[in-house]
Amino acid sequence: MKIVTKKESFTNPLYLESGRILEPYKLVYETYGEMNEARDNAVLITHALSGSHHAAGRYEGDRKAGWWDGLIGDGKAIDTKRFFVICVNVIGSCYGSTGPMSRMYPSQERYRLKFPVITVKDMVKAQRILLDRLGIDRLHAIVGGSMGGMQALRFAIEYPNFAKHTIAMAATHATRPWAIAFNKVVQEAIVKDPKFKNGNYDPDDFKEEGFTGLAVGRMAGHISYLSPESMDRKFGRSYVETDGLFELFGKFQVERYLEYNGYGFSKWFDPLSYLYITKAINIFDVSRGYDTLDEALGRIRSDLHLISFKRDMLFMPEEMKEIEIVMKAQGQGGLVSYYEVDSDYGHDAFLVELDKFSDYVAHVIDR
Amino acid sequence: MKIVTKKESFTNPLYLESGRILEPYKLVYETYGEMNEARDNAVLITHALSGSHHAAGRYEGDRKAGWWDGLIGDGKAIDTKRFFVICVNVIGSCYGSTGPMSRMYPSQERYRLKFPVITVKDMVKAQRILLDRLGIDRLHAIVGGSMGGMQALRFAIEYPNFAKHTIAMAATHATRPWAIAFNKVVQEAIVKDPKFKNGNYDPDDFKEEGFTGLAVGRMAGHISYLSPESMDRKFGRSYVETDGLFELFGKFQVERYLEYNGYGFSKWFDPLSYLYITKAINIFDVSRGYDTLDEALGRIRSDLHLISFKRDMLFMPEEMKEIEIVMKAQGQGGLVSYYEVDSDYGHDAFLVELDKFSDYVAHVIDR
Repeated sequence: MKIVTKKESFTNPLYLESGRILEPYKLVYETYGEMNEARDNAVLITHALSGSHHAAGRYEGDRKAGWWDGLIGDGKAIDTKRFFVICVNVIGSCYGSTGPMSRMYPSQERYRLKFPVITVKDMVKAQRILLDRLGIDRLHAIVGGSMGGMQALRFAIEYPNFAKHTIAMAATHATRPWAIAFNKVVQEAIVKDPKFKNGNYDPDDFKEEGFTGLAVGRMAGHISYLSPESMDRKFGRSYVETDGLFELFGKFQVERYLEYNGYGFSKWFDPLSYLYITKAINIFDVSRGYDTLDEALGRIRSDLHLISFKRDMLFMPEEMKEIEIVMKAQGQGGLVSYYEVDSDYGHDAFLVELDKFSDYVAHVIDR
Repeated sequence: MKIVTKKESFTNPLYLESGRILEPYKLVYETYGEMNEARDNAVLITHALSGSHHAAGRYEGDRKAGWWDGLIGDGKAIDTKRFFVICVNVIGSCYGSTGPMSRMYPSQERYRLKFPVITVKDMVKAQRILLDRLGIDRLHAIVGGSMGGMQALRFAIEYPNFAKHTIAMAATHATRPWAIAFNKVVQEAIVKDPKFKNGNYDPDDFKEEGFTGLAVGRMAGHISYLSPESMDRKFGRSYVETDGLFELFGKFQVERYLEYNGYGFSKWFDPLSYLYITKAINIFDVSRGYDTLDEALGRIRSDLHLISFKRDMLFMPEEMKEIEIVMKAQGQGGLVSYYEVDSDYGHDAFLVELDKFSDYVAHVIDR
């Protein structure tokens, strides 16, 4: 599989949903496989909150492969022998595309809190412009989970004739207060950490010790990515062997897991990007810009495949099911399919239990 | 209804489950109604994590009544015309009973992190000793929800012939990693707040502005006390009117709710007490001290009424159901009953939707 990582710069303004402008801006992206002559074999992969453009394969010396490596590659469900797969780091993120820690051209100053609030619609718009630049005027498919699923949905609504197949998983049509509440804990923990300095932190300060606010908040996030059942299976009531049960700071294994992942994450993810991307998730509502949800979904022309996970505690199956119900009720039944994966794993299942839906994805993409 | 608030001091050591000793110690408690001549009309109410001995009635000038006022009072489900109701602030708490901010006799120094880890078993033991002091050698009933339900269960196991009826609601027989994870977020947020000062904070510092670590962590707690459905109904996607949707710090109503409750709580609840009580909840397992769960539950002689709430996201109905299953399987079917309240409210239902279970409580208590 051929992997290429590239950066494109855009000098034309990106008009944002808020009315503000991002100018200039950059997008980092990765591609796998090769474009065919007809230029009609491109598959766009959209990433989640903490994801990046590195969806598959390994960089030299890497211990871990890209976040959807099990799904994307030669002979895999999204077969890179047949498809030209593209994954773009969303604007607002911290992996190279323009985000709050980018410099505000022409000054050398970083945006920080002056960065405009961006939306999932803006993320998708920027990717659409990148596809133009690459000479791609249609997609074979767009596939994403969680915030990636939101992007897939938004793409299908805003650019109805662009993708042939749309696969949105573990997402929602409008973020519920339950999910907003989890994001609130992280946002509050970040902003109130004295090291946040109202956004004026030195990012290098966190590389060694991590950033407590983000770490603590991310622990709350991890709860929403798992499920009671998956935690039972993963950790049960196991206690760290060297700790005493009656030590105040003695730990259950689940606590060690949260610490390890929370602090680890805070060493490499930027706190301002976290604020901006969670904001985009919170204000996500596909019906914004239209009179009703029916009208928004009514624009869809690609076939839309919704995949949900039974114990997803963040974006619940019924939220995806509702999209199918609305579409069927207004005569789009021929376009939409809904598949609920029987999984105890929770929200993270879309990253973990690939064997439970990769055949389905392969089948859709093959049609 | 006659309300009396009292404090009892004990100079004999309290031998704790950890092997450590608490000596001397104090218990603050409240009583409603009057003891009868036979001294057999006492009902013990056990409180939850953030609860206190002030379960019912109003102090002079109080805006709010005690936390279970809808259930306890003259002519109410727990009828104070018939019963002598007692509610004791648990050890480790911050409402007057001995806790981490108490002075370590004979010094004037506060315990702080030198306070021993306490367990639900210890809380119950102290209450049993208080009942002795009050000349009460049997209870008509013991009733509690959440950590109060844990105490009720533990009481029924440790003192099998003491209470006639035991009602445990919205609890579990052993805290699952899911609930431990929520507590971890609060604990970590408290401990890592620079104002925590390794436990050496001045408690007066928080009375005005609150304590960020506890506030942020408590927000995660509030998520677990509600449910996705109750948040939909309470807040939906309503946005604070004066905030802009595209302002980074603009708020949804659910975010305002979490802030208001989190910061409010942190002005009056002690962070060290929060650490110690959540620790007690985390290590709660009724089978500790026995070979099996069957053996522990097999000790119960009072009738046991389990009440769970359908959408409780913290202690789930199946956890209560399991107690019934085990007891029935070992021939205690005549003692146990299980009642699942149809509620969307979530864990907090035991404090809020009293109309859905007060008849049931009245019926049990009447028998």
